[in-house]
Amino acid sequence: MTILFKNAAVMIDGSRWLANGCAAVDGTKITYVGESIPEGRFDRVIDCAGKLLTPAFYNIHCHSAMTLFRGLGGDLPLQRWLNEKIYPAEDRLNPERVRIGSTLAIAEMIRGGTVSFSDMYFFCDETVKAVLDTGMKVNISRCLLSFSEDSTVKGDSRFDEAVELAKTYHNAGDGRMKIDMSVHAEYTNKARYCREVADYTHAHDLNMQVHVSETLDEHEECKARNHGMTPVEFLLDTGILVPSATGTATAAHCVWLSEGDMELLAENRVTVAHNPVSNLKLASGVANLPLMLKKGVRVGLGTDGAASNNAQSMLRELQTAALIHKGVTRRADIIPTGTICDMAMSGGAIAQGRHDCGVIEEGKRADLVLWDLDAINNIPMAEPYSTLAYSAAYGDVTMTMCDGKILYENGEYKTLDVERLRAEAKPILAHYFD
Amino acid sequence: MTILFKNAAVMIDGSRWLANGCAAVDGTKITYVGESIPEGRFDRVIDCAGKLLTPAFYNIHCHSAMTLFRGLGGDLPLQRWLNEKIYPAEDRLNPERVRIGSTLAIAEMIRGGTVSFSDMYFFCDETVKAVLDTGMKVNISRCLLSFSEDSTVKGDSRFDEAVELAKTYHNAGDGRMKIDMSVHAEYTNKARYCREVADYTHAHDLNMQVHVSETLDEHEECKARNHGMTPVEFLLDTGILVPSATGTATAAHCVWLSEGDMELLAENRVTVAHNPVSNLKLASGVANLPLMLKKGVRVGLGTDGAASNNAQSMLRELQTAALIHKGVTRRADIIPTGTICDMAMSGGAIAQGRHDCGVIEEGKRADLVLWDLDAINNIPMAEPYSTLAYSAAYGDVTMTMCDGKILYENGEYKTLDVERLRAEAKPILAHYFD
Repeated sequence: MTILFKNAAVMIDGSRWLANGCAAVDGTKITYVGESIPEGRFDRVIDCAGKLLTPAFYNIHCHSAMTLFRGLGGDLPLQRWLNEKIYPAEDRLNPERVRIGSTLAIAEMIRGGTVSFSDMYFFCDETVKAVLDTGMKVNISRCLLSFSEDSTVKGDSRFDEAVELAKTYHNAGDGRMKIDMSVHAEYTNKARYCREVADYTHAHDLNMQVHVSETLDEHEECKARNHGMTPVEFLLDTGILVPSATGTATAAHCVWLSEGDMELLAENRVTVAHNPVSNLKLASGVANLPLMLKKGVRVGLGTDGAASNNAQSMLRELQTAALIHKGVTRRADIIPTGTICDMAMSGGAIAQGRHDCGVIEEGKRADLVLWDLDAINNIPMAEPYSTLAYSAAYGDVTMTMCDGKILYENGEYKTLDVERLRAEAKPILAHYFD
Repeated sequence: MTILFKNAAVMIDGSRWLANGCAAVDGTKITYVGESIPEGRFDRVIDCAGKLLTPAFYNIHCHSAMTLFRGLGGDLPLQRWLNEKIYPAEDRLNPERVRIGSTLAIAEMIRGGTVSFSDMYFFCDETVKAVLDTGMKVNISRCLLSFSEDSTVKGDSRFDEAVELAKTYHNAGDGRMKIDMSVHAEYTNKARYCREVADYTHAHDLNMQVHVSETLDEHEECKARNHGMTPVEFLLDTGILVPSATGTATAAHCVWLSEGDMELLAENRVTVAHNPVSNLKLASGVANLPLMLKKGVRVGLGTDGAASNNAQSMLRELQTAALIHKGVTRRADIIPTGTICDMAMSGGAIAQGRHDCGVIEEGKRADLVLWDLDAINNIPMAEPYSTLAYSAAYGDVTMTMCDGKILYENGEYKTLDVERLRAEAKPILAHYFD
């Protein structure tokens, strides 16, 4: 299938854009971007007058099935929220519920222009199947835990699940599925177990996902437990944050990094998943994004689970990231708005090891979003970066395309029966909100 | 006209809600709210299954015509943004342009569930006429300035405009129009002029709007200029912040208040217009909302002009206010989410002197909004406060009603030709973005 987008404002990436441009797609790839109309015949021509074409979003930190718990435990701080609300709710999960919870998140992400997410949870095969069916991409990881110094991956059913998942699904769906490894965090794991997981990850050239320094308590208690080592130092020492030969490592949250931690992350090409909304909502704090960027740390954006956000909107993360660092540093020019857009797009794609995604360029994957510039909140558009970061609304997405396939267009899901999903979700939700 | 809303989740105010309730409207007023269906016949019955009925939003700080300048001067700090971009653009305004800029803002507000706004600008009669036509409410004020110690209201054309505006429009449209007075700020006015404006305001029992301590520089320079008096002290001393007999005073921004300032504002029943998005975007800082509330200060929310936001979405202000103070204080329970909702609703109505608005109760004005709970981002709803504050999106409003009149419903504006507005706006916008 060949598609031509014409008469569009085109955001190529965070620093280049066309006021009136074209882009062509052939199969899964972008074959042209420019100001003139390319030669050739197209199966479909989309007139994009009054629309903005951008790269799609890559959400690099998520627990998709937790969408079932949206709004549970309203204004509680992290530890009480986990212990009193979330852990008991998770005890009542099963594969069917995880499938439905993940699909709720998938539907919300597709509607908002997200084509790929990094997930860390359990019953992962249910989530992978849901992603395969809907045409999205995922970097999924079975979350690993170890409670004793003697814990070992041998005979550990969670680790076996992770290995099985990788064997079954890694690179399935023309590479749309990537099976990553993950240990939950330093505070829920021991060194020996981490080393064994890291060895497996490196031997099989997989990516790694891990929570890092989300709260001040976590950061300080790690140092007390580990002879002064920070979570970053512990996770580098055990190999967890050392990327595989062609793989990546993603450190989620990083609210309480030291300057030294940032230098280590930059050196090791680790991507920080910045989750500003979740960090504010759970009162974890505000990550020092300006200093991370100054130190050369790679950064992408994530929503975290809907239970602590409470949305799966990458636009909202982008907008929050664009605003909050200006306010906290009291410098309106602290981070260019285009740089924040890059984090949500190419920054996330790189974190997921999807180096052929995230930019509208010839040869890249056709992961594209159309935005309605005629929406009353977007008039006028001075330039597209301000529009996304400060004016656009979640509902302004009119089309989401993943690998050249349209997943959503003008109010309709193309790969997902959202009415059936609502009907399936209802009886399950009754279990959590009765 | 009588209307019955049935099968709705009903947010009565920030602390009371019904999971399945009814509300009845007769003419401009709410005549019933409760769990059972009221007796009587209704001209229209709206089945609200899957919907949330809430009080509408009252935006208490705005410069609506500045919507023309949305996105102008992207990442600049306040003073450079004003001097290099905004003031030169304002020089090119005229009545026709103000009418169209205000109408763009009005359309955006109605779409997002806002029925009333407090405005401070010039060519105000154009804005009033646009508001009258569209069925919204406004508290409008001609922004006053005085540059010399000898400045006097006598013969001042701006003051004459303000007086004329009050004589022509105060309480027009069944009270929907209120003409407030405003001096721009301490740093753009002198004491004698302020005293004269305050005298007129008190003599005619009008409301007052003024910018207060938006930036640290403004706050500190005021003290240097005025023998240590803060902007709040200066504006109380000159009578500006002293409410009229039955009137109100609104102090916009208040990012840099001292504790003493807060006590004075509480004592004098002044409402602070908290504009979190504008304050972050212009890098002014984060107002200490938790301490204001502790001191008993009244607070409402405002968008400020679209030029420094860049949206006119009260939902976005509500959501930003709900998140940012948790993150900055690192206490997830610092302000209950329902309290933030009250600020956007009844808190704003009180600031505008609309004491019969902002709550869904028998006898109050029928200013109501319906939200789509079946939108994928709102499933599930744990309780309505979390839904508004953390999940809902701008596009989820399905109906906006002001004084019993439907202004927007299911994609259609009932009082505004939005296609014509877009066509009118285009040639004007070309003047600012060429």
